[in-house]
Amino acid sequence: MISPHLVHFESLTPDPHSNARRGRLWTPHGIVETPVFMPVGTVGSVKAIGPDDLAKDDVRIILGNTYHLYLRPGHELIRDFGGLHRFIGWHGAMLTDSGGFQVFSLKGIRKIEEDGVTFRSHLNGSKHLFTPERVIAIEEAIGADIIMAFDECPPALESRDYFERSLARTTRWLHRCQSAWKREHSSLFGIVQGGLFKDLRRRHIEEVCALDLPGYALGGYSVGEAPEDMHEGVADCAPLLPADRPRYLMGVGTPVDLVTCTLAGIDMFDCVLPTRTARNGLLYTSVGKIIIKNAKYQRDNGPLDPNCDCYTCRHFSRAYLRHLYVSKELLAMRLNSVHNIHYFVTLMARVRQELENGTFATWAKEFLASPGACR
Amino acid sequence: MISPHLVHFESLTPDPHSNARRGRLWTPHGIVETPVFMPVGTVGSVKAIGPDDLAKDDVRIILGNTYHLYLRPGHELIRDFGGLHRFIGWHGAMLTDSGGFQVFSLKGIRKIEEDGVTFRSHLNGSKHLFTPERVIAIEEAIGADIIMAFDECPPALESRDYFERSLARTTRWLHRCQSAWKREHSSLFGIVQGGLFKDLRRRHIEEVCALDLPGYALGGYSVGEAPEDMHEGVADCAPLLPADRPRYLMGVGTPVDLVTCTLAGIDMFDCVLPTRTARNGLLYTSVGKIIIKNAKYQRDNGPLDPNCDCYTCRHFSRAYLRHLYVSKELLAMRLNSVHNIHYFVTLMARVRQELENGTFATWAKEFLASPGACR
Repeated sequence: MISPHLVHFESLTPDPHSNARRGRLWTPHGIVETPVFMPVGTVGSVKAIGPDDLAKDDVRIILGNTYHLYLRPGHELIRDFGGLHRFIGWHGAMLTDSGGFQVFSLKGIRKIEEDGVTFRSHLNGSKHLFTPERVIAIEEAIGADIIMAFDECPPALESRDYFERSLARTTRWLHRCQSAWKREHSSLFGIVQGGLFKDLRRRHIEEVCALDLPGYALGGYSVGEAPEDMHEGVADCAPLLPADRPRYLMGVGTPVDLVTCTLAGIDMFDCVLPTRTARNGLLYTSVGKIIIKNAKYQRDNGPLDPNCDCYTCRHFSRAYLRHLYVSKELLAMRLNSVHNIHYFVTLMARVRQELENGTFATWAKEFLASPGACR
Repeated sequence: MISPHLVHFESLTPDPHSNARRGRLWTPHGIVETPVFMPVGTVGSVKAIGPDDLAKDDVRIILGNTYHLYLRPGHELIRDFGGLHRFIGWHGAMLTDSGGFQVFSLKGIRKIEEDGVTFRSHLNGSKHLFTPERVIAIEEAIGADIIMAFDECPPALESRDYFERSLARTTRWLHRCQSAWKREHSSLFGIVQGGLFKDLRRRHIEEVCALDLPGYALGGYSVGEAPEDMHEGVADCAPLLPADRPRYLMGVGTPVDLVTCTLAGIDMFDCVLPTRTARNGLLYTSVGKIIIKNAKYQRDNGPLDPNCDCYTCRHFSRAYLRHLYVSKELLAMRLNSVHNIHYFVTLMARVRQELENGTFATWAKEFLASPGACR
């Protein structure tokens, strides 16, 4: 199945001093410059901010969550509206996860079998079955440019035995996903699992990459393990993924994670971190993390981040942001989220610039030692 | 006290067929075209939307609430930041109420005496005293372009006896407000009370307007009486207010109220209605009120209002707005508020245009018979 509509990865400048690469993702909804951070729009909206806010940061790709969208508003409604892009009014590229991560998080209200996973909705307790075939059909109805295979994502600290059995099933499921995949405007990406077992990861990379898919992801990181263990695992795995396909590290991470894993050769990242923390008043800045409700900001007339040119930092003081937050004003959620998304997105723009200049490895070392390298 | 910084009302085209007038308010923070609807920014933010959203609708004046701002973040902090405009990053004009309305709503936790009102904070139960002198000092610290006198606002259905005593005290308080008023960049407006007693209203208008203030307001409407009674009262009172001063109807109202009371000669309106209802999923449109959570909008691909060019209506469908609302997404709050504010603000822009064309009375009749004349 070779289609001109498939997502295609164009490799630009490889970094001479690390495994990092400057690249470009060609999608049916525009070009995405990589390495890239993708904001998460769980139910079809990047929480607390609008497409207008994202456009100001030149965000070219966002995520949707299959599990949530399937339950509400339903993939059939989305399909009838011409797909998720049209339904939510987003003109850039989109990626959907497979729902696997959410479904496997529903401890006690789900059951894993060879055919698939039976689970109960967190909304109303209704019973549902996700099989690889069903998930691909749902993702194709939602119609993102990139759709993720249905895999099992075990906790990082599960036993080796469990991982052996789970990986074998995930590989069988991947074959079923590939067979079920029909829509040529939606590119199927495979997912490598294996927890912190390096040999299992390597074996799984071989199994997954044998399917010659448009892109590959590392899943099962940032699920309870120490960040250092994750960094080590990613450094080991990423270079083994095919160089001519995009490499996506799922659900990661902090600014430190983004730069560290770009050094390892990752091209794509996503995480709810910037938006979720923003809603809790935790802000990422070049001078370190800021908990805006702290009393010390009550009379602080300076901008949130003196080195930031986002809408929030250009117009409002820390004192006002604190006032909005403690007063539970909705504007606090938006202004905080606008800033955090800007921080993550411009960090990656800087990464790309440094890669183009051939100075990334040096810059990364400096950045990782700076106060802006928030964890 | 004649100051060039005082708010000055310029009368433009008076309507030949009604008491309506096209006017202009010159303030230290720009010109406000009247008749005007002023969005309410209770604690220093028009709820759920940003100054950028307001700028798109050419909003020139917003309100702040003295009671709320006094309690948090505190008028002294605001003063130290150079006033409310600077603290919240708003470059247009501002008006503060006197806190009277809020304080008198605190039934059971406040006590009215000749000197002023003792009340307890709704935030933490702490005890406070508002006197006319204290309120003017607080409002001057906050530093709005227009500051309202401290008055008592009794429920519309209080007895005549109660109103007689209350009005006499409110007049004494107004004299104390005028004596306390020092800041020449903040123009003191007097407030006429009297409930639905026309003779009391008329007598109070004489007492209040004798003070030769930069503007006058009708207070104590939309506090429990029937809208028709309010319209009748305003029609009776508004023309008795001096023609060369702005006339402000406080806390009003619906689209029907705005047009009806403009006909009576009102220049300024404020109300939390568009933003509060927006957060509850109630939307004002040219085709009537819309409760967005209704199942009939689940598959409605049309815009919220087919005749609206706000950001929300230009980019999103009723189905998506419904999805955001039932999913409790924060974006729903912003998009709904953006639309409702646009509806109220552009309604008044249309009113001004019709006044300039000399066609307002005819247009008003048609509007009031149309589905857009929401109550």
